[in-house]
Amino acid sequence: MSVSMNSIVANGAKDVEILPAKDDVHGGVVVNVVEAMDPALFHTLLVASMSHWKKQGKKGVWIKLPIAVTNLVEPAVKEGFKYHHAEPDYIMLVHWIPETPSTIPANASHRVGVGAIVFNDKKEVLVVQEKSGVFKGTGIWKIPTGVVDEGEDIFTAAIREVKEETGIDTEFLEILAFREAHKVFFKKSDLFFICMLRPLSSQIQKQELEIEDAQWMPFEKYAAQPVAQVHDLFKLIVDLCSAKMESNYAGFLSIPFSSAANAPASHLYSNLRDLGLSGSDDHPQKAV
Amino acid sequence: MSVSMNSIVANGAKDVEILPAKDDVHGGVVVNVVEAMDPALFHTLLVASMSHWKKQGKKGVWIKLPIAVTNLVEPAVKEGFKYHHAEPDYIMLVHWIPETPSTIPANASHRVGVGAIVFNDKKEVLVVQEKSGVFKGTGIWKIPTGVVDEGEDIFTAAIREVKEETGIDTEFLEILAFREAHKVFFKKSDLFFICMLRPLSSQIQKQELEIEDAQWMPFEKYAAQPVAQVHDLFKLIVDLCSAKMESNYAGFLSIPFSSAANAPASHLYSNLRDLGLSGSDDHPQKAV
Repeated sequence: MSVSMNSIVANGAKDVEILPAKDDVHGGVVVNVVEAMDPALFHTLLVASMSHWKKQGKKGVWIKLPIAVTNLVEPAVKEGFKYHHAEPDYIMLVHWIPETPSTIPANASHRVGVGAIVFNDKKEVLVVQEKSGVFKGTGIWKIPTGVVDEGEDIFTAAIREVKEETGIDTEFLEILAFREAHKVFFKKSDLFFICMLRPLSSQIQKQELEIEDAQWMPFEKYAAQPVAQVHDLFKLIVDLCSAKMESNYAGFLSIPFSSAANAPASHLYSNLRDLGLSGSDDHPQKAV
Repeated sequence: MSVSMNSIVANGAKDVEILPAKDDVHGGVVVNVVEAMDPALFHTLLVASMSHWKKQGKKGVWIKLPIAVTNLVEPAVKEGFKYHHAEPDYIMLVHWIPETPSTIPANASHRVGVGAIVFNDKKEVLVVQEKSGVFKGTGIWKIPTGVVDEGEDIFTAAIREVKEETGIDTEFLEILAFREAHKVFFKKSDLFFICMLRPLSSQIQKQELEIEDAQWMPFEKYAAQPVAQVHDLFKLIVDLCSAKMESNYAGFLSIPFSSAANAPASHLYSNLRDLGLSGSDDHPQKAV
């Protein structure tokens, strides 16, 4: 028997071996399998464990299985477990024990993207032509865009994408708008944030893999592209640029924010100027 | 042999049976298994299929396995497939064939929540006490909050949560701010949108399951709760309410928006007033 197994006395009757598990803060338990195990043994232990946890009044039971022990998925499903989510190297299964409605939280539901508007002092906008995607080979110049990584801040992603695609260093100014779309990828939804950034350098060095070409383009020329007359997102970006240059369009600035003492660093995005928080510096969020 | 199998001639040599698959628009194929299959047979077919698709120059190969055929996960992983994502009733596996870097899109990375600020004509704010969660039993009155469902609009979720928790009908006005937090749930990130809504009814009917109590509370009383002095999110909500009442704080309004002819309905959130799009009606987005 593996030394990682727990031996416990259940009901004072006889030794019953159950799976090692940690309590979570919601009245449930988490089983984190880290080494290979015979599927039949795993199933036997799981049956005994479920009986034990049920008697203990446990609620949600989570089982995390690395992809190396994919042969343990089937016995867990056999015991009524459902998939909760999966990442490339593991799958998380969950089973709700009580008769009451499940309060198991939903899986991640959204992907988040960014588009970066970067103007220089000559009212030129930083644009690229991509080697793939819907605009490939069309000759259309677009602003740098990309996907926000898991755990990454929106403003950090905008700065990163601009740097990766064009080599330009920037600082984040504000979010001008965002688009909400659905079923963009499988059944997931998508939030696309249009950000404004200020360049901190001017020499373009384009990325070879994804970017066909990059340049500083006079805004009038960017706005005059035929696509900007027919494509809603292009039109919007042109409108937002114009509003920023011609009037005092107020988007959402970003400041560090935390909602709990021990929570990881978080950020607030809001119209800080209208909250009286802008002061003399319109862009408190520097590149990090 | 199942009739759902494809019989093809590969390389003009001999009949080779491969898994039924559909081409996707990115140069890959999608295998959607819908019925039980012997795992050994599945493995044999998969090996032949991968060889065939490789010769065809296919890129990403996707395999969707319903939870009923969880015994097919192991043979797929054996052939080098990784997990991409999972929902309660299926798992999606993926394998990138070419030598070039994978362009397989990332899994959903974020969850999205809403908080709903609802004021009536008497400057009372709609608040609840919850039966569970961090404020359970504390006597703290908070605004209705909840999670945005997959495929649901932010404004729809805010309206729905208020209705579910308090029975009050509302229309969406604007997003005042949002908070970005990380590792809130496993490694996923979280966007929490603070929305302002206008009540269309006044009679509270609280939800029994989750809500201990609900009421219209004078704003001064809400803001005077001790928690509002120490809890960043409470403080922020009080500040945003004050800014809305005392000044002309401009958040992000919502209008229908589409980025492509055949794309599903989407919405734009921006400072429409500064874009000159508000007109006489500050809240174009009615409840749907």
